[in-house]
Amino acid sequence: MKALDDALLITPGPDLVYFTGLRPPMTERLTMLILPARVLVVPALEHPGDLPGLEVVAWHDGDDPYALVAELLREPAYAISDSAWAMHLIALQQAAPHVRFTSMTATRPLLRAVKSEAEVALLAAAAAAADATYEQILSVRFRGRTEVRIAAELSDLLQQHGHEQVDFTIVASGPNGADPHHHIGDRVLTEGDMVVLDFGGLKDGYGSDTSRTVHVGQPSEEEQQVFDIVRTAQQAAFEAVRPGVACQEIDRVARGIIEDAGYGQFFIHRTGHGIGLTTHEPPYLVRGEQQPLVPGMCFSIEPGIYLPGRFGVRIEDIVTVTETGGRRLNTTDHGLAIVS
Amino acid sequence: MKALDDALLITPGPDLVYFTGLRPPMTERLTMLILPARVLVVPALEHPGDLPGLEVVAWHDGDDPYALVAELLREPAYAISDSAWAMHLIALQQAAPHVRFTSMTATRPLLRAVKSEAEVALLAAAAAAADATYEQILSVRFRGRTEVRIAAELSDLLQQHGHEQVDFTIVASGPNGADPHHHIGDRVLTEGDMVVLDFGGLKDGYGSDTSRTVHVGQPSEEEQQVFDIVRTAQQAAFEAVRPGVACQEIDRVARGIIEDAGYGQFFIHRTGHGIGLTTHEPPYLVRGEQQPLVPGMCFSIEPGIYLPGRFGVRIEDIVTVTETGGRRLNTTDHGLAIVS
Repeated sequence: MKALDDALLITPGPDLVYFTGLRPPMTERLTMLILPARVLVVPALEHPGDLPGLEVVAWHDGDDPYALVAELLREPAYAISDSAWAMHLIALQQAAPHVRFTSMTATRPLLRAVKSEAEVALLAAAAAAADATYEQILSVRFRGRTEVRIAAELSDLLQQHGHEQVDFTIVASGPNGADPHHHIGDRVLTEGDMVVLDFGGLKDGYGSDTSRTVHVGQPSEEEQQVFDIVRTAQQAAFEAVRPGVACQEIDRVARGIIEDAGYGQFFIHRTGHGIGLTTHEPPYLVRGEQQPLVPGMCFSIEPGIYLPGRFGVRIEDIVTVTETGGRRLNTTDHGLAIVS
Repeated sequence: MKALDDALLITPGPDLVYFTGLRPPMTERLTMLILPARVLVVPALEHPGDLPGLEVVAWHDGDDPYALVAELLREPAYAISDSAWAMHLIALQQAAPHVRFTSMTATRPLLRAVKSEAEVALLAAAAAAADATYEQILSVRFRGRTEVRIAAELSDLLQQHGHEQVDFTIVASGPNGADPHHHIGDRVLTEGDMVVLDFGGLKDGYGSDTSRTVHVGQPSEEEQQVFDIVRTAQQAAFEAVRPGVACQEIDRVARGIIEDAGYGQFFIHRTGHGIGLTTHEPPYLVRGEQQPLVPGMCFSIEPGIYLPGRFGVRIEDIVTVTETGGRRLNTTDHGLAIVS
């Protein structure tokens, strides 16, 4: 699947890990893998030693690395890593004015989006670790403790289950749940709180990302109703997954159910995002994205309803596309768990 | 000093902290402060609430944030943050084809390079914390312990002295010292090792970065000689600091002394880099950099000699430019400390 014959400019980050396994820092000193030339341009300070199949060209402080790269560009156009620095891109555009530079996500959306079996297995293992974390957090006491405290327990559990990196541990309680990207704070959880849990990171280099909504004590009728709408939307979106369906169709299905129930204005984000060496990458399940699903793609399905000043609900699984439909990598129960 | 009337496009990172204090994540969802319009474009999910003096414009998943920004651009050219993502820049170049986008470091090298008195005080406090860390590490046992272990102690000490973030803790012992950016490993320190220590991070948002070279037991005559050359070069470079002198001149002075001593080929990096809200930023003390020094600039002076397969030496202070010369923010002794 690795597009070694394509015209790509790869900078430190997930693309470089994908092609070389290298994880140098992204800095003001240019590091760039040029494909299909198979030349890795590096600052001399970061020389990785010999690499099979690649020519390593080192530059020294005071040299012009952009002129060096420009001389190595043989193709009329290259797609450059999404997170490449603007300062590097602008200098390259000046050094190679006849070369066209395009956006990786815009022009090579499938570069890392279709996972190999080995990658799906790694994502499944990361998901299993996140699921084990969720199962264990259910037996923790929520009442009387702060969001920060519960988040710290999520972080500890993810690491205990093999994550080398924890990227986010959202604990959004009561009215905080209405903010999908709530930053955890000192709010003390109390009887009657809906609590959105959304956590993940990297295990063996591959991402986890799951959300469940729990309730401190028994929910009200309205809370249960809103919860059930999200659960139905998540299930319907999952069932819509199969090869050839456009990404935006999955979003449309989830959104349709929430709109039909009268909560459309409160589902304020896209339905999902790809996951792999990062926790956000193509494909994006969003209005306007016509990319058809392909077996091996892995992404989140995470509809939600956010009622300002009151509460929020989100349910999120990582799903992989199979030949005939979708398979959930997160498999914990979708019901509204009651915590103490 | 804040260039609110300049034409700038600011993305998450140190530039955005500088202008707004905000620290949103850098993601595939565009966040951008447009100056001089004073409009902050944000994903609705990351809405920071009202901000005095700024208009906040939120966009939703499925909207085109680049078309939105393009409509807000009134100037013929904008400098964009160095670390802005290439995917965002390319999409903006397409959405606003008549606007010219320039590199912040290339066209606005002074944006954050000249520090206010308050900023110098914060950098001095960060340097003092790093100095206290160095003083304490000297009484730690080096012999028989791994680089990783010593690095962990440096990290703990930096945090004890008020760092909220530790960015690097290089412990490069014996032959590892010949790699300026050595990644710490399991090498056990032993009698006769030169050891380069280089550590820093952020304290109250501002960077620290200092290097000292120590020796396990008594050094050989040659080791002491190489050490003294680096020490002399560092001192001479420091004494060359005064307003109006070009950045490259500081590099030339340090390099000249090392070259005259016959070690020029072993000083394999620039002499220094600016420091502030990040640990690497303009001005860069490097061959070709003609920017004159300005009072308030703060940067490292860190010459070194690296002998492949044998050992390395580096001495690094953060220095601020005064009206009449330079002032060191790191003030620990420059001598070759003997550790046990």
